[in-house]
Parts: sequence; structure tokens; C-alpha cells
Amino acid sequence: MFSLTVRRHFMIAHSLPREAFGPAQALHGATFVAEVSFRRRALNDDAIVLDIGAAGSIVEEVLAGLNYRNLDEHPDFEGRLTTTEALGEYIAQSVATKLKGHDDGRELTGIDVTLRENPDAWATYSLDLTA
Amino acid sequence: MFSLTVRRHFMIAHSLPREAFGPAQALHGATFVAEVSFRRRALNDDAIVLDIGAAGSIVEEVLAGLNYRNLDEHPDFEGRLTTTEALGEYIAQSVATKLKGHDDGRELTGIDVTLRENPDAWATYSLDLTA
Amino acid sequence: MFSLTVRRHFMIAHSLPREAFGPAQALHGATFVAEVSFRRRALNDDAIVLDIGAAGSIVEEVLAGLNYRNLDEHPDFEGRLTTTEALGEYIAQSVATKLKGHDDGRELTGIDVTLRENPDAWATYSLDLTA
Amino acid sequence: MFSLTVRRHFMIAHSLPREAFGPAQALHGATFVAEVSFRRRALNDDAIVLDIGAAGSIVEEVLAGLNYRNLDEHPDFEGRLTTTEALGEYIAQSVATKLKGHDDGRELTGIDVTLRENPDAWATYSLDLTA
Amino acid sequence: MFSLTVRRHFMIAHSLPREAFGPAQALHGATFVAEVSFRRRALNDDAIVLDIGAAGSIVEEVLAGLNYRNLDEHPDFEGRLTTTEALGEYIAQSVATKLKGHDDGRELTGIDVTLRENPDAWATYSLDLTA
Amino acid sequence: MFSLTVRRHFMIAHSLPREAFGPAQALHGATFVAEVSFRRRALNDDAIVLDIGAAGSIVEEVLAGLNYRNLDEHPDFEGRLTTTEALGEYIAQSVATKLKGHDDGRELTGIDVTLRENPDAWATYSLDLTA
Repeated sequence: MFSLTVRRHFMIAHSLPREAFGPAQALHGATFVAEVSFRRRALNDDAIVLDIGAAGSIVEEVLAGLNYRNLDEHPDFEGRLTTTEALGEYIAQSVATKLKGHDDGRELTGIDVTLRENPDAWATYSLDLTA
Repeated sequence: MFSLTVRRHFMIAHSLPREAFGPAQALHGATFVAEVSFRRRALNDDAIVLDIGAAGSIVEEVLAGLNYRNLDEHPDFEGRLTTTEALGEYIAQSVATKLKGHDDGRELTGIDVTLRENPDAWATYSLDLTA
Repeated sequence: MFSLTVRRHFMIAHSLPREAFGPAQALHGATFVAEVSFRRRALNDDAIVLDIGAAGSIVEEVLAGLNYRNLDEHPDFEGRLTTTEALGEYIAQSVATKLKGHDDGRELTGIDVTLRENPDAWATYSLDLTA
Repeated sequence: MFSLTVRRHFMIAHSLPREAFGPAQALHGATFVAEVSFRRRALNDDAIVLDIGAAGSIVEEVLAGLNYRNLDEHPDFEGRLTTTEALGEYIAQSVATKLKGHDDGRELTGIDVTLRENPDAWATYSLDLTA
Repeated sequence: MFSLTVRRHFMIAHSLPREAFGPAQALHGATFVAEVSFRRRALNDDAIVLDIGAAGSIVEEVLAGLNYRNLDEHPDFEGRLTTTEALGEYIAQSVATKLKGHDDGRELTGIDVTLRENPDAWATYSLDLTA
Repeated sequence: MFSLTVRRHFMIAHSLPREAFGPAQALHGATFVAEVSFRRRALNDDAIVLDIGAAGSIVEEVLAGLNYRNLDEHPDFEGRLTTTEALGEYIAQSVATKLKGHDDGRELTGIDVTLRENPDAWATYSLDLTA
């Protein structure tokens, strides 16, 4: 099994308005460092999982929709909590959608998104593309 | 599949009294950086794997029992080798035990503990909670 | 010359309402990783620059005043831009003030604050305490 | 499940002579940081996955065959593209071959090689040894 | 004193044809991670050292002249050794030249370039702009 | 001004038997990651600060005298506290002594030793060689 990972980051404001989140109920923000991995059983004819330029562009397009935004006012998250876990799932699914029109995209078996919110905490969402 | 990871560290003395360990047979020590991951199939109602404050507290409680100790004299390791691998298993099982009384703990499918002992070496123990 | 550094982080929302800041004029946020260094010519009787517990507590107290806040509504920054550079200066001066009542504080020659806002960008403010 | 990882690096020149690689078609180079993980279901009598000294030596032997080389003229890669993904597979298989004569080698269930080519890109190859 | 740092990377082939360089006399390569710091006594009216977008663009322009190149055939290094130290000096001076036409460039007191060639080795060149 | 840095690590046991050190009064241990920098005004004829192989060997020789040791029983530290700060000074002076017989050693203006004891704490000692 092979995987290729690209790393990018984005910076957002948000609040987590549930009692469980304690001080994070207030409007605050985060730099999220996103590590997006593409999994595949065998390499393509160019001996790669996916063109790394294409992979980077797709991830950048998805993150551009979040970067420098207040997620409390972002239409894609209306009525939804923007936890690190939920953002990871959102990014993985958005990347997967963009890959549908891509030749190598059809060969992928999964996408993993790790979001690092600070040096001591991160979350990962693994999307299975074989189901 | 989702996972949440918290990172903490602890600093211990120990020796590894078997010929196989060469110079590490002598009393020496280590800073272990522990990355503890909690795995779960679906998020809870707050869109998280586990309350990150609770996760951090549980890991800190477990590591507090090791931090600033000489593991050669620690009752939990009497007659046992305190290799990085063995410490990872000990921490994962201790964390799992503490999670038994926790609502979200029952939903977890696994716990992974990575212990980094220096920039060039680390070990991971993966505990399956579905068995 | 000796220095001791402690690292902590805080997570804030803010905007930078000047044309020069482009997309950062919008309300967004950041995780700031703060590395605070204390400089001293010679060590104290305990062979340290400063008690690391005291150093950590002082930095945590200062950062607690910023963490989980929207800096656009923070009284200390009314009418001021909360750039990374400006926040570094604010933190260094706040730490210096708290050190005034501390024995080892009088021996320090400087405080450096590095704020990392993402993996590719950071700023440092160096406060000279000998002037 | 347990794993032990050792990290080493090597520095090479190469070119990727296919249109898909854009500017990387030209002769350039890379520092590859290799993280080689050894997986095993249960620990050996010394409570380890594998002797870490042996693991490090095997990885160093394999990387010594690549380090300070122009891979375009390396006999092992004649007619093959030396992408990060392909190098990861080559290293995993070379390490596996060297482990065949090693007692603990027979107990391993897999080897993972992650090659980091820059702070924003890496690839992993996972070799299943149970098949 | 303030500084702002931006980080970028570039990937090159080169050889170091002097006996002192041992195996690095052969054609090989490196990923260089460049950390370029801009120093200034006081902040500008926008409370910054320099526009971070402008800083990043200038560094990228300079590194674009090196990236994906074989430095043995680069006209700027004819008859010169491309050691990490020498490349750091070259980058600092190139960045300084580009800053001459820039308002904030005139206020800078220095530029530091750190080039990381692998996790265990790096070099820094500090250019004094006040002389 | 130029500097070259090499990074290595060592693992020790020790105690800090003064009330000020709280729980660190007990026998415990640490992995110290040492970053040793060599400063010089101008490069030598090979366009380097110092042969990186020689620099690495000298640092390794010094650290070999500490690695896998209980510093409480190390003759060089009899009656001395082995704080991070004190160990940094010891390493810098030991490296400087070894450099005395080295051609490039005479041109160095300083040596800086940073010892990282955990992800959140480190200390630096700067030795001025021009005095």
C-alpha cells in the first residue's frame, strides 16, 4: 500500500457553543495545519500515487474556502459544530469530491486528513473510498 | 474513522539489564514524548471523539505515575523490562482502564500510544478495544 | 551568556483592519506558539537562569489573558493592531512586569519572545533589560 | 500490535524525465528523511520488537547504497523512475531482504517506510510480510 | 529589536569537488529549508517589520532561481563552492538587493538566512545592513 | 557572520538535590537533544565554517562521555548540579578544548550549545571565544 501526503495550513476564527467546550465556547481561533494523505494499492505509470502538483492544488482549493474566515458565519457550517474532527471530515469529503473528475482519483482507496490545532493536539479523519 | 490525539511528556530513569541492550544496561534515563490517540467510528453529539480536556487529564494522570521516577524501583515494573515498547503498552492499558467509567470511553474502538524517546527512535502500541 | 526558554501556546481570533493586510483584514484566528527566553550573564546558586516552574507560571499567566479571546474586543489592544510582532512585544513586556517582584528577575539581561503563527512564519521581539 | 521506528536520512541527485513532473524533469536533488517502522504482533523475550541497534544498522546499510549518489546513474534504478513512492518501496524491500537472516525478522508482520522530501510532502510504502 | 521570519524550501543537485568533502565530492543533492529573518529596531505604521506577503514573494523569487537546478551548472556559482554556508550568504545578499527598492527595506538592520540541509545539520549567515 | 550547527542527542539519569527543584530532586532522567553551533566571521578556503565531519565527531566524543550515564556518579560533576544550563556550559567548554588543536578552531569566534530537554523547555549557553 502506498500513500502520498501534502501539508498546508489555514487560519480561522470560530466558537464552539456547547457547554462541553468550556472556554472554547467564546469566539477564538486557530491555525490548522492540514496533512492530507492519498492512499492507493499500486502506483500509476509514472510511479506515483497522484501528481503532487494536482494533489496540492486540490487541497489548496478546499482550504481557500476556509482560510481567513469566521466559521461561525460560513454557510457550509450553518447549524454545525466546527470541531477539529468535523473539519477533518469536511476537508476529506471536499477533496474526494474534487478528485472525482481526476484519472488517478478513481484508483484511490482512501483519504486521511490530520488537522493539527496546536503542538499538543490533533485529530484525524479517514475516508474509505472502496466502500 | 476518527481519532483524537493528545501529546504530553514525562522524564524517567531506568536501566535495561539484559545483554542485548549494550550500553543501555547501565542506569540512564529518557524524556518520553507520548502521543495518545483515541479511535472511534462516529463522533458523539458534540461532534468530537472525546472531550479533549478529559483525554488530556486521563493521560496526565497516567503519566504522573511515571514522571520523575526511577522505573527500576517502580512497583508496577517489578521483574519487567521497561523498554519503550513495554511502556507504550502499559500506558495504553492504564488509559483504557481509566476510560471504563467514561461515557465516550465505551464508544472507542482503539487506543494508540506512540512514545518518542529521541528524534531518531520511537515505538507504538495499538490497543484494540473491539475484541 | 545563558538563556532558558519555555514554550506554551494560545488560540485567538482577531482581524487586521488595514488595507496592507489583504485577506487578513477579515475576522480570522490563529494558534500562536510562544517561545519565551530569559537571558542572564551568570547562573544563580542553583545553577539555573530562573526556576523553570516560575518561568512557566509567569508565561501561562500572561497567555491566559489572551487565550480563547477575540483580540478585537480585548481592552489591552483598543486602537492597536494585534500583529504577531505587536503581540510578541506585549507578551515580553507583560512577562517583564511580572518578573519585577522576583529575585532572579533582577538578574535577567533580556527576554525574547518568538511567536510562531504557522509552520512558515514567525516573529521575535527582543526586550533589553539592561538599559 | 507493536511497531518500532528508526529515522535516518540520505541526500541524492536525480531527475524525473516524464512530462508529468514539470520542473522536476531537470537534474535536481533531495534530502530524504526516512522513517522505517517494523511491525509485530507480540514482543520478543527482551520486550522489544527488534534490537534497535540491529534495526538502525540494517536501515543505514540500505541507505548507504543511495546516499551521496546520482540516482540517474544508479544500477538498481536503470529504466526506473526514482519517485519518492518508488524509493520507499525499494527501501522497504531491501530492508526486508536483509532481515531474512535475522531471528526477530521472521516474527515481523510488516515494514512501513515514510520518506519526507520536504516539510510539505512525504510518501509512505507499507510492505505486508504476512502474505 | 524585532524580526520577522518566513520559511520556504528548494531542492537542488550539486557536488563539492574538494578532497575535504569526502563522499560529498560526488554529484548528489539536497532539500534546503530556508528560514529568512528580517530585523528592524522599530515597527512601521502597520505594526509590522515588513509586509509578510512581500517578504515571502522576495524569498520565493530568489529561491526560484535555485530550485530544481544542478548548481554545478548554475552561472552564479561558476568557480564557486556551493556549500550550505555559501548558499546562505548568496540568498541573504540576493534578498537584500531585491529589498533596496522597497520602503520598509530601508529600515531593516539585518537579514539572517538559516539553511537546514538535514535534521542534524544547518548553517546561518547574518548580513548586517547598518554598516 | 556565519555559523554551522550540528545536532546530536544523549540520554542520562540524574537528580537535582535542592529544594528548588521540587519533584526533580528524585532520581529521574532525560533525553537531551544538543544543537552545537560554531560561529566565525569569514569562511575558510573550502567555503565552510568548519569541516562538518570534524564538528560532528568532536560533539559525539563529548556527548559519549555523558550518554547512558547516571550523572550523579559522574566524576566531572562531583559536587555540581547537572541542570540543563550547567550541562550546556560543560559541553561548550569541552568542545572548545577539543577544538584547540584544530586549524579552523582558531578562527572560531564562539560556540553556542542549546540543550532541549523536552518539547516545552530548553536552555542555551553561548561561549565567547574572542575574549
